Amino acid sequence: MAEEETPAPAPVTSADVARLAGVSRATVSFVLNGTPGHRVGEPTRARVLDAARRLGYVPHAAARSLRAGRSNLVLMPASVSAIGRLVSEWVDDLYGELERHGYTAVLHAGRFADPVDAARAWAELRPAAVIALDGDRLTAGAADLLRRAGVRGVLAFASGPVEGVHTVGFDHARIGAAATEHLIARGRTRIGVVLPRERGLGALARPRLAGVESVAARHTATVTPVELAYTRESATGLARRWRGLDLDSVFAYNDEYAALLLHALRAEGVAVPDEVAIVGSDDLVLSGLQQPALTTIRLELPAPARIADAVHELIETGGAAPVPAMEAVLVHRRSS
Amino acid sequence: MAEEETPAPAPVTSADVARLAGVSRATVSFVLNGTPGHRVGEPTRARVLDAARRLGYVPHAAARSLRAGRSNLVLMPASVSAIGRLVSEWVDDLYGELERHGYTAVLHAGRFADPVDAARAWAELRPAAVIALDGDRLTAGAADLLRRAGVRGVLAFASGPVEGVHTVGFDHARIGAAATEHLIARGRTRIGVVLPRERGLGALARPRLAGVESVAARHTATVTPVELAYTRESATGLARRWRGLDLDSVFAYNDEYAALLLHALRAEGVAVPDEVAIVGSDDLVLSGLQQPALTTIRLELPAPARIADAVHELIETGGAAPVPAMEAVLVHRRSS
Repeated sequence: MAEEETPAPAPVTSADVARLAGVSRATVSFVLNGTPGHRVGEPTRARVLDAARRLGYVPHAAARSLRAGRSNLVLMPASVSAIGRLVSEWVDDLYGELERHGYTAVLHAGRFADPVDAARAWAELRPAAVIALDGDRLTAGAADLLRRAGVRGVLAFASGPVEGVHTVGFDHARIGAAATEHLIARGRTRIGVVLPRERGLGALARPRLAGVESVAARHTATVTPVELAYTRESATGLARRWRGLDLDSVFAYNDEYAALLLHALRAEGVAVPDEVAIVGSDDLVLSGLQQPALTTIRLELPAPARIADAVHELIETGGAAPVPAMEAVLVHRRSS
Repeated sequence: MAEEETPAPAPVTSADVARLAGVSRATVSFVLNGTPGHRVGEPTRARVLDAARRLGYVPHAAARSLRAGRSNLVLMPASVSAIGRLVSEWVDDLYGELERHGYTAVLHAGRFADPVDAARAWAELRPAAVIALDGDRLTAGAADLLRRAGVRGVLAFASGPVEGVHTVGFDHARIGAAATEHLIARGRTRIGVVLPRERGLGALARPRLAGVESVAARHTATVTPVELAYTRESATGLARRWRGLDLDSVFAYNDEYAALLLHALRAEGVAVPDEVAIVGSDDLVLSGLQQPALTTIRLELPAPARIADAVHELIETGGAAPVPAMEAVLVHRRSS
């Protein structure tokens, strides 16, 4: 399928456009990038646009932002696989809303142990704003670095306020808490909590576990973390040693892990919900179709347009109106 | 959760660093961006680095790439939701491999009707390379525009060669063809093909349908496209009118749609596989756990490291060794 490549020619520059149009580079920059302090007549403008079109010249967003002192880039740090089925359409819609405001949205997938290292890598691209889905990893120091680099807005989904960040309430602990309140109301007292082994999910799983623990502590229920990789082998292994764990219920991180564990338990003859009640999260389409149908948590996220408006406001004015927090609503079905 | 924002201060610039370090901006640029044609002693370098650290100054990747004539950005156009469960971990691994080579990988989620408009938007960010998962939408004109803008490598997954693009064979028609060969070998002749209603999936679904049609035409089997949205309501609606369609089998686009349709058909009393055989695609973890277990197509993708190496080679030399094409392998289970 691969063919021989021709060596890359020298890129077309604004100097080439200037030469072809018979004008100065400053004039080209004025016409194409909107740099201030310059006036040109309509025929000159037309000549520049025609030359740019004929040469296939594309203005450089970075050069434009360097001159204008403004970028139109909105950066969202996140790994693709951690986004998950539920949030992926929401993210796509958010990208669409940002485009409507004239921004270019990009996802930055770099992995960093230190929040300031992460902020430095994002700042190198000089975005106008950063939207952090996993805002509990943002620190005041990271936000400060971003601001010093000219990032005008930082919006983050986080469980609590972060200095210099416009936070939207998004507390994973509430998901675990809602599941646990339901299980305890159904008479269950020995609660397992699935911790996914997949990388990138630990940061989301730990607060869910903490939410389970805080509710269980108020009701003298026990909490047992159980590790599970998203593979048949791991689920089968867990199902085989299930009865030894002596648990009457499990909060399974999300609906995908819940469905995986449900099928593995049934294959080993463990009765759901009689022997073990299962609660997932995210209310995926498939959850209601499992046998038995999965009890789950429905996450009500703020409208993408609302987030895009807040980001635009942050960029334009440095502040924005509060955005309503995420809600976690239990959906009771047959698995609990 | 939202707090009052303080107005953004003026960003820290290399001029601030130069002032604090008592050197020229050219010296700062030399130390931090590696601009050529300059020499500085170790004490000066240390003074610049110290000033940058104290001010929280981050070099501007774009400015650096403007000066060096090179960017370290690798851009991947794709919507997050179209990537899907199967490919998302592969994409994360690819990002990791690109980072190993010193590149920053970003996902660009812009939606464009015209390939040249898309290329123009990508070119504005002046990436070193573009990796297109949906390469069948790339044209020679779009590749030419990218090259003129200084993009040194364009690698695309595509069903056939595209001028100016290093293509990796990835033909969705082969997925539909493999499913159809299996169904016909099992004696089925009236084949339905699920077309997802979700946006962004049409471009992937049409070649799969074409693959079904090309095999069916050689065996006098009939092919009936059926639309399905990824919702319970849509699946139930399709299941209720299923018997009127007079089909003995269905290729259900992928395992998620296959599982959705399987559950809806069973709920309406349609026997799988006796009345209708179902084949999905992607060999997701959950597929083997459905009742009955889903027949599927396993996609064997090239190793992410192999793709990252090819991209690096393209950027460095303008050419790269061929990368093996995707393979589509049938996994026979109980649903067919």
